[in-house]
Amino acid sequence: MIPFNKPYLTGKETIYIEDAVKSGKISGNGKYTQMCQSFFENKYNFKKCLLTTSCTDALEMCAILLNIEPGDEVIVPSYTFVSTALAFVRQGAKIVFADSRTDHPGIDEDKVTELITSKTKAIVVVHYSGVACDMDKIMALSTKHGLFVVEDAAQAIDSFYTGKDGLKRALGSIGHLSAFSFHETKNIQCGEGGMLCINDEKFIKRSEIIWEKGTNRAEFFRGEINKYGWVDIGSSFLPSELNAAFLWAQIEHLDDIQQKRKYIWEKYFELLKLHEQNRVYSLPIIPDYATNNAHMFYLVCKNIETRTEIIKRLKENSIFAVFHYQSLHKSDFYIKKHDGRELINCDRYADYIVRLPLFYEMDEECISKVYKYLK
Amino acid sequence: MIPFNKPYLTGKETIYIEDAVKSGKISGNGKYTQMCQSFFENKYNFKKCLLTTSCTDALEMCAILLNIEPGDEVIVPSYTFVSTALAFVRQGAKIVFADSRTDHPGIDEDKVTELITSKTKAIVVVHYSGVACDMDKIMALSTKHGLFVVEDAAQAIDSFYTGKDGLKRALGSIGHLSAFSFHETKNIQCGEGGMLCINDEKFIKRSEIIWEKGTNRAEFFRGEINKYGWVDIGSSFLPSELNAAFLWAQIEHLDDIQQKRKYIWEKYFELLKLHEQNRVYSLPIIPDYATNNAHMFYLVCKNIETRTEIIKRLKENSIFAVFHYQSLHKSDFYIKKHDGRELINCDRYADYIVRLPLFYEMDEECISKVYKYLK
Repeated sequence: MIPFNKPYLTGKETIYIEDAVKSGKISGNGKYTQMCQSFFENKYNFKKCLLTTSCTDALEMCAILLNIEPGDEVIVPSYTFVSTALAFVRQGAKIVFADSRTDHPGIDEDKVTELITSKTKAIVVVHYSGVACDMDKIMALSTKHGLFVVEDAAQAIDSFYTGKDGLKRALGSIGHLSAFSFHETKNIQCGEGGMLCINDEKFIKRSEIIWEKGTNRAEFFRGEINKYGWVDIGSSFLPSELNAAFLWAQIEHLDDIQQKRKYIWEKYFELLKLHEQNRVYSLPIIPDYATNNAHMFYLVCKNIETRTEIIKRLKENSIFAVFHYQSLHKSDFYIKKHDGRELINCDRYADYIVRLPLFYEMDEECISKVYKYLK
Repeated sequence: MIPFNKPYLTGKETIYIEDAVKSGKISGNGKYTQMCQSFFENKYNFKKCLLTTSCTDALEMCAILLNIEPGDEVIVPSYTFVSTALAFVRQGAKIVFADSRTDHPGIDEDKVTELITSKTKAIVVVHYSGVACDMDKIMALSTKHGLFVVEDAAQAIDSFYTGKDGLKRALGSIGHLSAFSFHETKNIQCGEGGMLCINDEKFIKRSEIIWEKGTNRAEFFRGEINKYGWVDIGSSFLPSELNAAFLWAQIEHLDDIQQKRKYIWEKYFELLKLHEQNRVYSLPIIPDYATNNAHMFYLVCKNIETRTEIIKRLKENSIFAVFHYQSLHKSDFYIKKHDGRELINCDRYADYIVRLPLFYEMDEECISKVYKYLK
């Protein structure tokens, strides 16, 4: 049996959890939380990181920090996980859904301008499968129209974008704010988990308050004020040290994990490339400005019947491939609020994409077996 | 050194975490989550339980389930943790703060009626230190005025209320909805954690949707529908299996933990009772209708100077006692929104209450040492 995903364990997860437990401090914002945050800040040049209980929660923090309120419009791709839109809906935003590119499931950067109105407050981009959107184009729109940019980098850890200036920047370090996921399906993970990254310094002080239930507790513990209290909205966004300790064990093996995943990804690509002329499916495209963090290997089938057939054939041979997402603009929750525009690329990916098994422990034999039924 | 709190470990926490990790399923809603939820449902007669990442999150779920929106008023005691109010503020509620009782920090049930208006949608009660509010009075108001009741049972696990009907009910099982905390300072804990309990069945179906990011994923996995999608608002409220596995180890020792904590509490009470006539502080009162779950041992000092002096004296002898809460109606965040009413009991508890060390591993020697400096 080849599952779709199998969370990889480095072996140190429970050792670090035990260490956290023995220290007697397992609520949030302890040693491991701070170690994880510092690691990401230093490695990827984020100005400030805060671990959260999920990527959804990190996106909610973005919506709060941007003061999103009823009447505001936020541009979000329709081909994404529910949370990308949901977090902004919770603050009262109207979501203006954007279509995907023809060559890639990411947002069509060239069609964002026409969605901008005087009510638009932010553009949320999703680096689908860890592959960068064209951030030069997005940031130019941000500057021109005075909009905030949030990167939904849920799948994009350890992936990069090279701009026209020739600089290679980590995904999540380019927009004003960004959000990562450490859900068990991600490259590095802690079951359920996420992270808010702040690149625009003006958001840092308030982010700590929102993270800690609207209190200025962080300043109090740094000795900057002599008592703490309720000063803002917020929630309990911070995870337990259990989750942070687990994540730390994963972080220590990040390079190894990435190397292995990239090997599997390349192997898939190399093998399946031989059959692309069959035109039953097309392979992922990595634009020149983007890197591939091997989060996901997907095929875009030529139609929904082909996809159904491929998933069925694999399943009959105990191989579990899956599809996602449903177009958010057509969801039961949003269809009546949507302005009626057709988003044809989004709908196409919703119907045609299949994701192949990809996890650390896949060996040559596994890869060959999957390949055998895709030839 | 005697700390204020020391989280107790049963020894099985990391074993169960390891089991969860080895099962390859450590995201939310797995085996341990379901075991914990079933345990609480059966033991305390809750109709439905859902673990959450915090009590704050459970309270947010209450606010969403009750369709709280701008214009709605929610009655909340001012002497409580920020989250009791914050969760409802996040949905746009106006908080109408209630005062505490003269004899107890819980909400003054007899002064709630005068706060009810045509805009009031819910009453939130807090079972301070795990000691019940007079729920007959609160539920009568609920019936008379058509209001929802939310029990903030953050501190109230394994504590009970006996009504005029003679029935003994678990706290959290009486209002329409309730919220518990498993923060590391609680009797049983998992670092950061919480639980929503639903007693009014009409909220059950929607609660699962809200818990799972506004999707009907739970119904899908039960085979009730053939695809799942975005159908409602919500968030990622569910915790990782790491947290649930940890909590399960604590649950297994619940009786032992409660017995030990009650012993310590009684010992404090017995010793300090001897000195109550000094009138420097008064001891906690447990009304006849309530049980004591020994979550907390607090003293109400005769004034703030006495409290400061007691905390200082203990600290000089390496004993750490703490105070809480600041009156929420006077917080920086709410003072201008508050209607100006004085809440004298709330302010008194905010200034006069001191909490003594109370944790599983306190032995006779520890208790005697604390007592020595309180005589």
